[in-house]
Amino acid sequence: MTQQPGTLAEIGEFGLIEAIRPLFPQGAAVEVGPGDDAAVVSVPSGRVVLSTDLLVEGRHFRRDWSSAEDIGHRAAAANMSDVNAMGGRADSAVVAFGGPADLPVAWAVDLARGIADECALVGASVVGGDVTESDAIVVSMTVLGSCAGPVVLRSGARPGDMVALCGRIGWSAAGWAVLGRGFRSPRVVVEAHRRPEPPYAAGPEAAAAGATAMIDVSDGLLADLGHVATASGVAIDVRAGAFEIAEPLQAVGAALGLDPVQFVLTGGEDHALAATFPAEVELPAGWMAIGAVAEGSGVTVDGSAYDEVPSGHQHFR
Amino acid sequence: MTQQPGTLAEIGEFGLIEAIRPLFPQGAAVEVGPGDDAAVVSVPSGRVVLSTDLLVEGRHFRRDWSSAEDIGHRAAAANMSDVNAMGGRADSAVVAFGGPADLPVAWAVDLARGIADECALVGASVVGGDVTESDAIVVSMTVLGSCAGPVVLRSGARPGDMVALCGRIGWSAAGWAVLGRGFRSPRVVVEAHRRPEPPYAAGPEAAAAGATAMIDVSDGLLADLGHVATASGVAIDVRAGAFEIAEPLQAVGAALGLDPVQFVLTGGEDHALAATFPAEVELPAGWMAIGAVAEGSGVTVDGSAYDEVPSGHQHFR
Repeated sequence: MTQQPGTLAEIGEFGLIEAIRPLFPQGAAVEVGPGDDAAVVSVPSGRVVLSTDLLVEGRHFRRDWSSAEDIGHRAAAANMSDVNAMGGRADSAVVAFGGPADLPVAWAVDLARGIADECALVGASVVGGDVTESDAIVVSMTVLGSCAGPVVLRSGARPGDMVALCGRIGWSAAGWAVLGRGFRSPRVVVEAHRRPEPPYAAGPEAAAAGATAMIDVSDGLLADLGHVATASGVAIDVRAGAFEIAEPLQAVGAALGLDPVQFVLTGGEDHALAATFPAEVELPAGWMAIGAVAEGSGVTVDGSAYDEVPSGHQHFR
Repeated sequence: MTQQPGTLAEIGEFGLIEAIRPLFPQGAAVEVGPGDDAAVVSVPSGRVVLSTDLLVEGRHFRRDWSSAEDIGHRAAAANMSDVNAMGGRADSAVVAFGGPADLPVAWAVDLARGIADECALVGASVVGGDVTESDAIVVSMTVLGSCAGPVVLRSGARPGDMVALCGRIGWSAAGWAVLGRGFRSPRVVVEAHRRPEPPYAAGPEAAAAGATAMIDVSDGLLADLGHVATASGVAIDVRAGAFEIAEPLQAVGAALGLDPVQFVLTGGEDHALAATFPAEVELPAGWMAIGAVAEGSGVTVDGSAYDEVPSGHQHFR
C-alpha cells in the first residue's frame, strides 16, 4: 500500500497525474505516451480490437469490500477479458478516473498500481487518461488489442459444435454473497470476487484451435451462452454434471442455504471464457467440454429450462 | 427531441442499447461494430491517435443549463478536439455512459444523438460502449484517430516561431459566466458554451503546413500555451492587440463588470487550436498570428506577466 499522505484536494489534478505516471511503463509500440493532447500507438497488424468498461462505486465495487488495488485489477481485467474473448490480447489502454476531492492520494495511487499490475500481466501499456472530480468514484477504461489469428465472434456457433469453458466460474458470485451477508470467509471466494483471474492466454489459444464462437462470462454462464445462442441462431444445452463444484462453493452454499450450482450457472464477473468448437477439435489445455450446440434457440441445462433461468444482471432494473 | 416515453428502469440496460444503436452508423473501417465482446476496426495507417475524456454531471455540465443533445455534442467534441490538436482526425469511438434508473429514456437517446451528430461532422463511427447505473450522469468517451501527415506534439516549439490561433476563444467562458448569474443571453455565448465548435479541419491543415507544436485550448489560452512552453522548453509572448474582442464578449464584460479580454486569455472549453509555426510559414486559412516564441520559459502578454495569470482549471482544487 502506498504511504503517500494527503488528499486529491491538496495535490490537485496535475499533482495526481505526476504521482501515478511513473507506475505506467510504456511499451515499444507507444510512439507518444501520456502528457500530450492524445497518445499515439503503432498498430502493426493494421487492425485494433477495442473495448470499454465503466465501473461505478456502489454499483460495481464498494470501498469497504475491496482495496483500491483490487478495484484497479478488476477494472483492467474486465476490459482485457473482452479482448481475450475475441481471441485477442490487450496492447494499450487509456483510463479515465473521477473521484472526490477528499479522497486520499494513496487510494488513487493504489488504484493506478492495480491497473498497472493487471496490464503488466499481458504487457499492455497505459498510454493516457483523464482525471476529474466526481462525488462517486468512477473508473472508465478503454483497451486496444490485437489478434494474431482470426477474430472470434459470438455469432459463429453451429449445430453440432461442442460448448467449452476455461477458467473459474461462480467464485466471484459466492464471494459477493458472502460479503453481502457481512462475512469475510471463505477467503478464497472473497479474493476471487475482489480480484478475478481471467485466463488471458486462453482466448488466443481457442482462436488458434478453431473456436467458432466465444464470449467473456461476465453476466453469468447461462446468460452469456444465451447471448451466443441468440447471435448464432442456435440452441445450447449445458450438462450440469460437467461441473465439479469446488469445495469453497459447496461451503458457501451450505452456509447460506443456497444450491452452489446456482453460483456456477448464473454468477458473473469471474471473466472466464465460454466458447464453441467443432466437435472433432481437441480442446486446448485448460478448456473443458460442458455442453453442445443444436438447432433451435435458447439455453437449457440437461435438456430443460433451468429452474431459476436468469436473464443475467441488467443495469437500471 | 426524442419523444420516447418511460425511464431507464422501465426499458433496462439492453432496452436502452437497442434504442440507441440505430443512431450510430458504421463506417467502412468497422469490421465488427456494437454487440460483441469488443469492436474491431481496421487501421490502414498502422498507427492510432488515442484520447479519452470523462464528463461528470455537476462538474462539466448541468442538466438545467444544457440539453442532452448539447452534452452529447460536447463530450464528442472534447475528445475529437484532442485528436485534432495532434494533426489528426477521429475515425472511431467508444462511449461509456452511466445514469440514474429514473432518467427519462428520451434524455439518454438525445444524448446519444448529440454524440452521433458531432461524430458525423468528421465521419467517425461509434463502434461500441458500455451502459451502467450511476447516481450522477457520467459520459466517458475514447476516440481513435489517424494522422495523414506528421503528428504534432506540444514539445516542438522553437525560439523564433510564431504563435497562431484558429477558432473562437472566450465564448464558452462568457456563456458560463452568464449562465452562472442566472441569465440566458447573449444567446450566442450561451450556445457557444453549450455546444463548442472545434475547427476540425484546422489540425490536419496546420500539421501539413509545418506546425511545430499544437494544443487544444481547453483549459484557457494562457494556461494551454503554458503547457506548450513547458513541454518545448521555450518562452511564449502573446500580443493582446492581436485579438479583436467580439461584440457579444464586450457586452457580457460590460454587463458583468469584467474585462472581456479575460475571457479570451483564460476561458477554456471552446476547443480552439493554438499552434506554433516557423516564422516564414504562410498560415493556413482561418489561423491568425497572436504572438511569438523566444528563449526562456513561461507565458507573457505584451512582454509582461498577465495581471491575473491563471493556472487554468484544475480539478480537486
